[in-house]
Amino acid sequence: MTITKRADMVVHEQEPYNAEPPRGALAGEAITPIESFYGRNHGRMPTTDPDTWRLVVDGLVDRALTLSLEELQTRFEAHEVVATLQCAGNRRAGLLAVRDIPGQHPWGPAATSTARWRGARLADVLAAAGLRSDASEIAFLAPDVAPEAQPPAPYGGSISTDKAVSGEVLLAWQMNGQPLPDAHGAPVRVVVPGWIGARSVKWIERITAQDHPSDNFFQQSAYRLLPPENDDPAPGDGVALTAVALNSEILRPDDQAVLPAGPVEISGYAYAGGDRDVVRVDVSVDGGRSWAQADLDRRLGRWAWRLWHTTVTLPAGQHQIVARAWDSTAALQPEHAASLWNPKGYINNAWPSITVSIHP
Amino acid sequence: MTITKRADMVVHEQEPYNAEPPRGALAGEAITPIESFYGRNHGRMPTTDPDTWRLVVDGLVDRALTLSLEELQTRFEAHEVVATLQCAGNRRAGLLAVRDIPGQHPWGPAATSTARWRGARLADVLAAAGLRSDASEIAFLAPDVAPEAQPPAPYGGSISTDKAVSGEVLLAWQMNGQPLPDAHGAPVRVVVPGWIGARSVKWIERITAQDHPSDNFFQQSAYRLLPPENDDPAPGDGVALTAVALNSEILRPDDQAVLPAGPVEISGYAYAGGDRDVVRVDVSVDGGRSWAQADLDRRLGRWAWRLWHTTVTLPAGQHQIVARAWDSTAALQPEHAASLWNPKGYINNAWPSITVSIHP
Repeated sequence: MTITKRADMVVHEQEPYNAEPPRGALAGEAITPIESFYGRNHGRMPTTDPDTWRLVVDGLVDRALTLSLEELQTRFEAHEVVATLQCAGNRRAGLLAVRDIPGQHPWGPAATSTARWRGARLADVLAAAGLRSDASEIAFLAPDVAPEAQPPAPYGGSISTDKAVSGEVLLAWQMNGQPLPDAHGAPVRVVVPGWIGARSVKWIERITAQDHPSDNFFQQSAYRLLPPENDDPAPGDGVALTAVALNSEILRPDDQAVLPAGPVEISGYAYAGGDRDVVRVDVSVDGGRSWAQADLDRRLGRWAWRLWHTTVTLPAGQHQIVARAWDSTAALQPEHAASLWNPKGYINNAWPSITVSIHP
Repeated sequence: MTITKRADMVVHEQEPYNAEPPRGALAGEAITPIESFYGRNHGRMPTTDPDTWRLVVDGLVDRALTLSLEELQTRFEAHEVVATLQCAGNRRAGLLAVRDIPGQHPWGPAATSTARWRGARLADVLAAAGLRSDASEIAFLAPDVAPEAQPPAPYGGSISTDKAVSGEVLLAWQMNGQPLPDAHGAPVRVVVPGWIGARSVKWIERITAQDHPSDNFFQQSAYRLLPPENDDPAPGDGVALTAVALNSEILRPDDQAVLPAGPVEISGYAYAGGDRDVVRVDVSVDGGRSWAQADLDRRLGRWAWRLWHTTVTLPAGQHQIVARAWDSTAALQPEHAASLWNPKGYINNAWPSITVSIHP
């Protein structure tokens, strides 16, 4: 398979492909170009012939469905959603600085990206199948085999029926106006706006309505918040990750940048998962002692990150720049990554911080 | 009006009546007895004759309604919801310790309580009135006149139609199986589970569907998150408070307690507003250096706090006990009240902390 990504991607692993762009590549573009969109994979990417691809919808439904791509595209109305996907391991590097996490990639600030997705509503497909009221979870199954599942097994996971029948969850065949690239799940992927990226299953082949969460490795063992002391977790331990916690990052300048004297534009993203909005971003240029509000860029709807920027003039010397976001419940990000450390290294949403030096 | 409350309520103001129980009174009782339930008022409490009381439903509806209590109770199915109400000023004392907030009461940890509410669904009443699709907010108006509104005006506020038509929002006439007491809004109050208490308007008289938020003082000027530097806010500044941010408190032992040697039970509440759940509570007996998980008491449903407890044995001397809660998105409370200080003193959801001394 050809993966068309920018040449300067930070590649954490070549096979399976795991890569994020340099942080600056995300700055200033509300919709992430596909070539900069992060890639997170657990197995070798499958290549699926769109003509022979079929989607099975089964389980607790009145009538199981088997849909071709053409049937999916013609039987159901197409909808568009601008949605941010965020890997649960986004910003893990900040947790690794607290304490090592063996076997997990040191994702930086760019394991998150935003696209305009187009596809059928999962709600409509489930309605066509006659979703039964005793279904509480909708499970997804894909063909990519993940070696880390013990034994190796196809990738999968599940979401609540409440979320599944909300209008924003799509079975998407387009991304930014183009047919979905192979690397992002062609011909069809699930997009679960507001939830961790792991639930937006690529190369979807089977959707099963059931009365319990998926028993897939990536639902029962990975993508769970474990307490710090649990270093030998059993399946089902901890809490399955669902909606994304409030988060933010500084995208420009780069960390450790050396800059000329004069105005410095500081910009970044903030993202409130679930049904929340980002309502305010504060920036400090003195390590968190004093704060000023950044300007929020245009709102792209309820499911997208909010880019922000502010311009400051800094004296010569070294400066610690810190940001923090507030959501529509007036909730604030927690201060310190040390408070958030967990054995798998998920959901680092501590205040982001960079250091810059200004020439004299 | 007779207010029947326990004798040891901490009364912040007698008229209008503003009081919370001592923190220990909330411990161990998932449903708060009415005599311990906090009272938050902005004006003299009205006394309403239930026989002459009428509820007007108007604005962007196909047919305005005027309902008597009997009509409300007979035309609409009764529903019960166990819901926690939490004042936006709950735990303000922790913010006052950072920097003074003139004119605002120093609420402690007990401006939050939980009851079993019974009433008609607001959704059903709005449906009967024919809620129009151009309505985006549902405004509430009460007869209690608030001197702090400039000029003095009746109390009111609004919530989004999305929330208003969710099944959990009630027009309640019962609390813990009893007719609603005068002090809690008789004959009928709004209960907006998961949102700040200020939107659960007592003594409701008028419900208006409209295409903009309420212009009431308590929507436009009070109950808004303002940035720290805004000490002379204009109406509309900052962010109107909606869902309650994740919070927790230690209820027992009391702060500054002196205890005999032996096992010490530590207990408290945790509450995740909006549609989130509390999934974990950690307790530290060394000021936050090390943590252990507390046991969560029985879950009372999606809209209620989660009580928790743990038992520790402490050596003689002074100990700082700290708690922190995690919600179903793996979000954690922020660490420090200093980060949260705001000019009106709302939503202190920093990690709670008490100091206890153990006898030698």
